[in-house]
Amino acid sequence: MRAGPAPASASGTSEHHDVTLAWEVGIDVGGTGSRLRGAPVGPDAGSTEPIDLTGDPVRIVSRRSDAPDVVGDLCRRFTEKAGQGTTTIAAAVGMRGLRSMTLSRTLNPYDVHDSLTAALGAGRTAVASDTVTAHLGALRGRSGATLNVGSGAVAIGDDDLGRLHIADGLGPLIGDNGGGSWIGEEGLRAAARASYHDTRGSKRLLHEATATLGPPETWESKLRDAPDRVRVLAEFAPVVVRAAADGDIVCQKILAGSVQLLTDCLAAVLSRPGVRQVAATTGQLMAVDSPLRAAVHGLMPVKRVGVELVDAAGTPLDGALLLARRLVEDPEFPSYRPLLTVRTAE
Amino acid sequence: MRAGPAPASASGTSEHHDVTLAWEVGIDVGGTGSRLRGAPVGPDAGSTEPIDLTGDPVRIVSRRSDAPDVVGDLCRRFTEKAGQGTTTIAAAVGMRGLRSMTLSRTLNPYDVHDSLTAALGAGRTAVASDTVTAHLGALRGRSGATLNVGSGAVAIGDDDLGRLHIADGLGPLIGDNGGGSWIGEEGLRAAARASYHDTRGSKRLLHEATATLGPPETWESKLRDAPDRVRVLAEFAPVVVRAAADGDIVCQKILAGSVQLLTDCLAAVLSRPGVRQVAATTGQLMAVDSPLRAAVHGLMPVKRVGVELVDAAGTPLDGALLLARRLVEDPEFPSYRPLLTVRTAE
Repeated sequence: MRAGPAPASASGTSEHHDVTLAWEVGIDVGGTGSRLRGAPVGPDAGSTEPIDLTGDPVRIVSRRSDAPDVVGDLCRRFTEKAGQGTTTIAAAVGMRGLRSMTLSRTLNPYDVHDSLTAALGAGRTAVASDTVTAHLGALRGRSGATLNVGSGAVAIGDDDLGRLHIADGLGPLIGDNGGGSWIGEEGLRAAARASYHDTRGSKRLLHEATATLGPPETWESKLRDAPDRVRVLAEFAPVVVRAAADGDIVCQKILAGSVQLLTDCLAAVLSRPGVRQVAATTGQLMAVDSPLRAAVHGLMPVKRVGVELVDAAGTPLDGALLLARRLVEDPEFPSYRPLLTVRTAE
Repeated sequence: MRAGPAPASASGTSEHHDVTLAWEVGIDVGGTGSRLRGAPVGPDAGSTEPIDLTGDPVRIVSRRSDAPDVVGDLCRRFTEKAGQGTTTIAAAVGMRGLRSMTLSRTLNPYDVHDSLTAALGAGRTAVASDTVTAHLGALRGRSGATLNVGSGAVAIGDDDLGRLHIADGLGPLIGDNGGGSWIGEEGLRAAARASYHDTRGSKRLLHEATATLGPPETWESKLRDAPDRVRVLAEFAPVVVRAAADGDIVCQKILAGSVQLLTDCLAAVLSRPGVRQVAATTGQLMAVDSPLRAAVHGLMPVKRVGVELVDAAGTPLDGALLLARRLVEDPEFPSYRPLLTVRTAE
């Protein structure tokens, strides 16, 4: 293992690809695509641009995730682009669904470590849930808590001993309370109720859902047979948000329920001893101009008096790069299975 | 078609199997088993006992329901037992899930009509959702409304023009609000929340669910892969009911939510013009000593002032037999697709 930055060559050219440089590499992989960022480090890094690459989405084939292949492919392309003499001292991957895939044996995270080490020669590697990298990116590596709301919902915090605490993120069937698929499901339930003269249904949602899904009597079988059911549900969430903004009372109640659940989730993490009372929100449903975000940020200090809500400073990819940096700075940086595994290759 | 009761033979024996008698046949088929009851009719019926048979549960094989086979088998056994010279003037079947199976083309109800006619020679036949036969049985064929709460939830009513009105019963993914699988899912969500220090979770439910399902992080994948997910969810409903009875506040809130949804569902049907304001409740979760039933019966007159709640008088099998009788009494008795199809064989 090459542990430190190697000296840059004295060629003096601005073309960094043939210069011996040390790199830290961060990778973000998920179901819609993957990204890699390499950052040069050490005294000679100043004149060198970072390297950014995009790659394939991760797929599950025959009940196995192809994440090791996707990560290996990105890393080989990075090594080619970075050029000869390149040293990668640390690499970290943030992955969508790592916890559930590890528990259901859809993925062995050490296969991803192997890909990193094989393609980059990186001695220090980390494979993390994107919940962890989103948290690191949002708070720029400072401690506190982060609530991520996309199709799912999950909160994570780190305490003063460096331990990670997670709340929800348990999937759409019995968790992800208040997230995109939850809102979409509640919306479809409200739409279906309007079809049979239930006064608590939403005619507006019935109209919108029928336009895309057909008559309500067919929704159950359509959703049951849909391999991407969560996506179908989550795609209905913005319809609920828009209808609420237009004054639909049923939709407003659904969003009020979502805000209660999301703030409960974040409060659960903030209530753990030693967690700094600073929180950020990330994910598609927490976009800066979202009324849902405003409601969560507004209600949060009522549930946790004194909590400071901050804007997310960076992305999960930024967080992966910060994680790689942390591996270098702290040789004792520990694993928190199944959210995070750290390895030093022999 | 033989339309009326045939005269009994003059043999004078009490053994009815060789006596020419007219019969009406009711059948109830579902996922746990099937039952047939034949009732003798006409002036000579008094000395003859009804015939009761039990048969196989209905299964879905290669995306097709085997209900026509199950019904055909029961009917052939009935014909054997009733003996020579038997005339079946009408037969009616109540089936679990008829509406969704018809809509998803898992079953063509006319294949069941064909089975009835082929095995019984019955000219007048009806194939109905068990929602319809449960309603007929519960109110002894009188008009009004019936709420059925098992793993699902559905209400049905008939108006003064004989039209049927249905509410919910749309399946566990976007309907069946307040029913057994809904209660079970809410219970598992509350259990999972307790696992991450969410103050709105139920530690009691977490303890009970972990004992049967393992750690909460594994529930999503277990439920996702379970072919009988609805059953797993519905089986957790009694756990929630027991915990509520023991004072678990989270469970009490879940049941309070269920009662709101169930009474909304029944109120939706009772609000349709011409529906008599008399209602019964049926199904496993509306058992006579159930606190959920007491709560629904207690709240209902608040949501529909003047509604009279009555005890269910009979079962879905009784209702199927009443439906067969109605086919004889009213030659114009109409179909209400997809809840009920009526046929007169040529």
